[in-house]
Order: sequence, then structure tokens, then C-alpha cells
Amino acid sequence: MDPAIGAKRAAAYQAVDDNMKREYKAVGVGSGSTVVFAVERLAQLTAEGKISSTTVYIPTSFQSRQLLNAANLTVRDVDVFKPGDLDVVFDGADEIDSDLNCIKGGGGCLLQEKLVGLCARKFIITADESKVSSRLGERWKQGVPIEIVPLGLAKVTYELEKLGGKVMLRSGGKSKAGPCVTDNGNFILDTYFGLIEPSKVHALDQQIKLIVGVVETGLFTYAKTAYIGKQDGTYTILS
Amino acid sequence: MDPAIGAKRAAAYQAVDDNMKREYKAVGVGSGSTVVFAVERLAQLTAEGKISSTTVYIPTSFQSRQLLNAANLTVRDVDVFKPGDLDVVFDGADEIDSDLNCIKGGGGCLLQEKLVGLCARKFIITADESKVSSRLGERWKQGVPIEIVPLGLAKVTYELEKLGGKVMLRSGGKSKAGPCVTDNGNFILDTYFGLIEPSKVHALDQQIKLIVGVVETGLFTYAKTAYIGKQDGTYTILS
Amino acid sequence: MDPAIGAKRAAAYQAVDDNMKREYKAVGVGSGSTVVFAVERLAQLTAEGKISSTTVYIPTSFQSRQLLNAANLTVRDVDVFKPGDLDVVFDGADEIDSDLNCIKGGGGCLLQEKLVGLCARKFIITADESKVSSRLGERWKQGVPIEIVPLGLAKVTYELEKLGGKVMLRSGGKSKAGPCVTDNGNFILDTYFGLIEPSKVHALDQQIKLIVGVVETGLFTYAKTAYIGKQDGTYTILS
Amino acid sequence: MDPAIGAKRAAAYQAVDDNMKREYKAVGVGSGSTVVFAVERLAQLTAEGKISSTTVYIPTSFQSRQLLNAANLTVRDVDVFKPGDLDVVFDGADEIDSDLNCIKGGGGCLLQEKLVGLCARKFIITADESKVSSRLGERWKQGVPIEIVPLGLAKVTYELEKLGGKVMLRSGGKSKAGPCVTDNGNFILDTYFGLIEPSKVHALDQQIKLIVGVVETGLFTYAKTAYIGKQDGTYTILS
Repeated sequence: MDPAIGAKRAAAYQAVDDNMKREYKAVGVGSGSTVVFAVERLAQLTAEGKISSTTVYIPTSFQSRQLLNAANLTVRDVDVFKPGDLDVVFDGADEIDSDLNCIKGGGGCLLQEKLVGLCARKFIITADESKVSSRLGERWKQGVPIEIVPLGLAKVTYELEKLGGKVMLRSGGKSKAGPCVTDNGNFILDTYFGLIEPSKVHALDQQIKLIVGVVETGLFTYAKTAYIGKQDGTYTILS
Repeated sequence: MDPAIGAKRAAAYQAVDDNMKREYKAVGVGSGSTVVFAVERLAQLTAEGKISSTTVYIPTSFQSRQLLNAANLTVRDVDVFKPGDLDVVFDGADEIDSDLNCIKGGGGCLLQEKLVGLCARKFIITADESKVSSRLGERWKQGVPIEIVPLGLAKVTYELEKLGGKVMLRSGGKSKAGPCVTDNGNFILDTYFGLIEPSKVHALDQQIKLIVGVVETGLFTYAKTAYIGKQDGTYTILS
Repeated sequence: MDPAIGAKRAAAYQAVDDNMKREYKAVGVGSGSTVVFAVERLAQLTAEGKISSTTVYIPTSFQSRQLLNAANLTVRDVDVFKPGDLDVVFDGADEIDSDLNCIKGGGGCLLQEKLVGLCARKFIITADESKVSSRLGERWKQGVPIEIVPLGLAKVTYELEKLGGKVMLRSGGKSKAGPCVTDNGNFILDTYFGLIEPSKVHALDQQIKLIVGVVETGLFTYAKTAYIGKQDGTYTILS
Repeated sequence: MDPAIGAKRAAAYQAVDDNMKREYKAVGVGSGSTVVFAVERLAQLTAEGKISSTTVYIPTSFQSRQLLNAANLTVRDVDVFKPGDLDVVFDGADEIDSDLNCIKGGGGCLLQEKLVGLCARKFIITADESKVSSRLGERWKQGVPIEIVPLGLAKVTYELEKLGGKVMLRSGGKSKAGPCVTDNGNFILDTYFGLIEPSKVHALDQQIKLIVGVVETGLFTYAKTAYIGKQDGTYTILS
């Protein structure tokens, strides 16, 4: 087996073992290649009776919904939860800086991911080391995904350029002519801001969110712990 | 004729006559009982050759789109315009305070109205005096309309209550079981904050917009001029 | 107590008692004033251990979802079910003819209601006698609700008029300026076809559904049993 | 220059020259590599004064909207048009059989394309010969694109399999995790039915459209003329 795979699995298992408790009632599950192993572990522990069979799981995307269904874990939508209601959330990231700020939304699910993440008492990132950098923008070069209402296309593009962004309307690629449409019926502007100092991520996130026409940004600033699988087959915990 | 109607018409005509120019290329048109007369005047001046027949009009709602179509004025969508592109916008309001801050969105079109308004070089309110108050919340008692993504229902409700709001999910009424759905597929939380000091409207608007799950608020803080029709048949200009 | 209420409750309780079995795994629940009592009965029988606590319930609308949540019954979405997967569905109707054809969609949820209904092995109507007529159109005068894609507005209106319909785009009423938007982001054309012979309902349903731009019709032709509460406090079963 | 490109251009120019008239008021424009040249020709003839500058153009997708905007042709939405209102429509196809039945929707815009096509008095296909076959399914192997409401996923999949289809939910590919979302907020089931006899396309189209949960199919059965560019640099007209 590829040692990197073993490391991802080990990191994800540890993330679950360290942060999951038998009495937890509601657990968020995001996306990414490492999260797959977190779900594997949650299913194992449930089968062994170490997690209650009445625990419900809140997916952040169609993908994680399918993963949870396949693992026979009970799925609930995020719309009935408020901050503090989810005991823990396990999610991936597209890039993680030295302060654990993240870029998310490469798969277009940033809004649902942020809603789920902000309802959590503990927000745990699991990822592999290719996602770790000192400043956002070093490794994830396609820009911060920003979800916008279609009617705001020209206006928001203009405002993001004023903030120094290089804006690209995400296309539907081979799947769809014209722009990619999110699960919420919106568009995504992948906007590159160069390298972003960790101390400035929060302010940039707020500047963007305040633009009329913006629904959500892919900048996540509230992770406290990350379990990182490494190429050499080991893993490390950042916090 | 009801003198109030005469006053609305006089106010709307004056708003158009003072703020419209022959060379204007793109004009926004919102909704409300006074705006009807603004469209009437725009159509008249176009027929008389005083407005170019190549001017295009950008509606803020399905309603104003139908009004413009009926008046044979050329309609364009807002998605191709950016700040500064619209020469002038004529719009109504649900309440107007002494600093010309407005509550809008009683008809659920706040997002499109704000996009159009913010693309304007001049944003002109036309309304009748029943909408004028010293502080927002005095006359419009059903709360500030706040457009949210459906998945954020419990979370955003919780955050608005933390800000001191009394939150009501807008129902579809007789037209639709369950919640009212906006033209963008979202829900509306009518949220009453009591009386809002004019000096605090801008900060409240930003606090709300920053909540993850909020798409837009019905607080408008950038009107510079309002033409107000009065019950006694006269009108007045606020600025 | 109003005898009509007592009759609705009796009819709904009987519908549940006759058609629900302990081993049922998945049950659909629609909307209407009589369905409220069906949910009441389902919750009672679950509390008494006569229905399994692992049974899941599939709502046809936001309204029935809230009803089920309030009764502490487990909710699932319809998207994972296929014909035959739901053991039974309890739903209301806006009008029921002598062949048990129904008009549904007064609340705008016809599409979800039809998807749920067609996944059922037994589709049971519960309603009060004000909904019963010999031909559709006798009592429900506002027309058959027809859900359409917004882009098809003029085209579908034209085609429905060719079929003899009197077409009215459903407005958002006091909740929303412009047209009512469904949970699926579509419009509703309430279309009156006069009195429809029971033998012709199925063909009309198909003619309408074949129109490009139509998503679904409010004509339901597959009910086999209806429990009808009467004004005099009794109820009757039609089949 | 690649002779195939020259042939596409020649075919598209001929299609426009044969079917466009100076007095035409409303013209539909679809997508595809050959349609690009049709727009080029329309723009040329407008510049030369051979097409009225007041003619409006109705795009079938975001892509053709951008193409028309770039060519400075006036764009209108299809929602205000009914059958007969468009003088002519120029569109491409993913496959064309010997009766000129087409598969369309590879780019996910089948619904809008069909609405536009059915409002036309003349529906003209322009394509290259790689799209031509004797029976649908010979060349376009990924299946007939079928647009469905997301809530109908399991049900419609089941019904399409009963009709003999091999069903694949179209994924968002690299642009979006999970399923591709259309401009109307729906999903696409690419469904392969093997080779379809030309005489059976119309019936299959109707069978599919009648399924509750289906919004539209990618089978088009009303083309009367096709201009086909060939690899050898010539073109041919089918009718």
C-alpha cells in the first residue's frame, strides 16, 4: 500500500479517536480524500458499539451524504442546527496556512461547509501534507472560491478586482456549457489574491462577505486542530 | 381624484424631470406605488423624444419588468452592470428615516434592488409620506427583511436573536404552503430590531450581512435624495 | 367541540388504523387540515409501541416536515425512494371526484406530493366532505395548479389556452411582489378547464405534462381509497 | 486553415443566407462549434445593413448569450415568446439521425434549447458531419441527457431503467463535487438506450417526458433542415 494512504488513514482515525465521544448526538462530516477514512472509522466504532447508533451525521455536500448513506450512518440536514449544536465536525481543506486558516470550496460546497463548521463545538481538519503552506495562495493557485448570486456577476467581479483579486468565473467544464452552478443555484468566482498573510485572512474574508452579491467566501478562519497525513507514512497534529 | 395620488404623481414626475437626462444610457427602475408614475413619466418623455429611444431600463423585480414592458421601454438584466454604469435609479421604500436610510424588501426583492441601486451614480427614492419616520422601525413594524439561504434557517435565526432581533420566517401566505421563496430561491426572515437610531443603521446592516447564511439585508444606507408625495396633495424633496 | 373537527379526526384515525402496520419502514405524509390528525395518530401509536420507532416518514412539504419534526417522528427526503418503497402515504386533496381523481397543489407542493404518492404501495386520501364533488372543477374554482419553468411562461400559457384552459400566473400575494415561486424555483399557472369528466382526467393530465416547459400538473389519478370527515360528525370511506 | 473549419463556416453562412430575412424580428441562437459561424454571419449582415439593427436574438444558453453580446447583437430572454414568435432558430446538435431527429443537451442546456426551438417557425440545425448517424446512439454514446428535479433522483432512475435505459447521474466533474446542476437548478441523467430507430424517437421522447420528476428530454424531433460541414471542406444540406 502507498504509505501516503496509510498516513491519511492513520491521521483520520486519530482525529476520530481523539475527538469523538460515545454520547455525541450530532456530528458534521465534510469532504476530501482524508475524510473518507474518518467516515470509515466512525462506521467501525458504531459497529463496535463505541459510538451510539442514534448519533446523527450532517453532511456538507452531496458527496459526503452518499458516503454516510453507504456507511449506513443516519443523515440529517444542517438547516435545523445552530451554533453549538454539533458536537464535532470533521472536514478537509484545499489549503491550510500556519494559523490553520483554510481555503475551501474547490468542490463548490463552501457555503454548506461553513454553515456546518460554524455549528460545531469542535472543528477538526483532516488532510494530507500537500495542503499545508505558510500563507494561503502558495499551493492553491486557482484562487479563493467565492459564491455569488448570478445577478451580481459584473458588479461583484468589479469589486473583487478593486480588492486586488484576479477573478475567474468558474466554468462548468465538460459537464456543463457556461458557468458552474452550485447546489444553491449560484455561481463561483475563483479569485486569486496572491499570497495572503495569516494575520490578514480574517479581514479579507469580511471585506469580501460585505460585498452586495456575495453569498459566501471560501476563507475559513476558525479551525483549531488539524490532523495531517504525510508522504512518509506518518502523521502530525497542528493546533 | 384623491389628492394623495396627485401628490405621488407630482413627486415622481419631478424626480424624473430633475434627474433624467437625454443622453442617459441605462436607468434602474424599482417598485412601489409612486414608481408607477416615474415609469409613466419616462414613457411620456421618450414618446416626446426628450429621452433617447435607445436608453435601456433595468428592473429590480418581476413587477417592474412588467411595468417597463407594458410601457414599451427596453429592458436589460442587472447582471452585466457594475457600480457607476447606471446613470440613475428610481426606487421606492417601505420606510425612510431622517438620514434617508431605508427599509426595503417588503415585496421580497431586496437583493435585486440593492444590486441595481449600488450600480447607480444617483439613487433617487420616490414614495409617499406614510413611509417617512425619524427612526426605522417606527412605521414598518414587520421587521427588516433579511434574505437567507434555506440551509441556514436555524443558524441565522439564532444569530439574529443574539443581535436583539425578533425573527419571523416569512410564510408564503395563501399563495404557498410553508415559507415564501424569493426569486433567488432563498427564504426571508422578517426581523424586528425595535427603533433603530439613524447613526446605527449602517453598522447593523454590516453586522447582519457578515452572518454566514445571510445573502442580503433590507437596510439601504446610500440614498441621497427622496421625493415625497403628501396627503394634502403637495410634495417635498428630502436630501 | 365542532363536530366537523371530530369527524376529521375520526376519519384520519381510521385511515391510519386501517392502513398502517407495525412492520412498515417508510411512510409518506402530505398536507391538509385532516392530515394533521393522521400525524397525531401516528405519533400516539408510536408512543404506545404499536408502530416501530425506526419507521421513517417522508414529508411532501416544508409544512408536513415541521409537523413530523414537532411529533418527534424521523424525517427522510423523498429523493432516495422509488416506486414501491413507501409502504403507505397519507395525503389530503383540494378536490376529489367520483373516481377519486384529485386536484392538488393549492399550497404549491404538487411536485413533491406526486413524487411521494407515486412511491407508495398504498395512497390514502384523508379530507373533509367540502372537497368531494362529482367532477373536478365544481368546487375548486381557481384552476388546476400547473408547475412550470419560469423561462416557459409565455409558451406554456399559450399551449394551455389552446387546450381550453383559462390561465392565471399565481402571484406571491402579500408575501412577495411578482409571481409565487415554488420550493423548486418554478412558477405556478392556475388553469381552469371548466368541469372535467372523471373519465377524461388522465388524458388531460398527460396532455399537459407533455408540454415542453411544464414540470408537473396538479391532477392526481391514482388514489384508491379516501377517508372523508363529514359536517355532521361522522365519516365515510370511498374507494 | 483546416478544411473542416472552412466547411463549418461555409455551412453556417449558407444556413443564415438561405433562412434569414431582413424583416425578421426575433431569431434564436443555440450552441455548438458551427453556430459560432452563424453568429459571425448574422453580425456581418447586420453591419452591412442586410439585417435590421432592431432584430432581437434569443440565446439558448449562457454561452450563446455571451457570443451574441460579444457580437453586439440585442439579446432577449425566451420567457416572453410563444410558438411562432421566433422567425428562425439556428442551433447545433450532439447527434442527428437520418430523419433529422437529434440528441441535444451535452452541455446541459436542453430545456432552454427546446423552449427556443419550439417557438420557431423554422428550426435549422448547423453541425459538422461527425454528428450525423443513421440511428441515435451510434455516435453519441454517453446517453440521452434527461433533466430531472433533484427530489426525483431514485424514482426517475428506476423508471428509466424500466424503459431499458442505462442511467448515469451526470457529475460536476472537476468544477463541482457531486452532481452537475443545470441553469434551472436540476440534475441530468445521461441515459443510454442503445441504438434508437428513427421511427421510435418520438414515442420514446414522450414516454420519458411523462415520467413524474422528468423536466425535459434531450430528444428533439422537429428539425426540418440541417446544414452539415464535412471533413473534406464541402458541406451538404439535409432535409
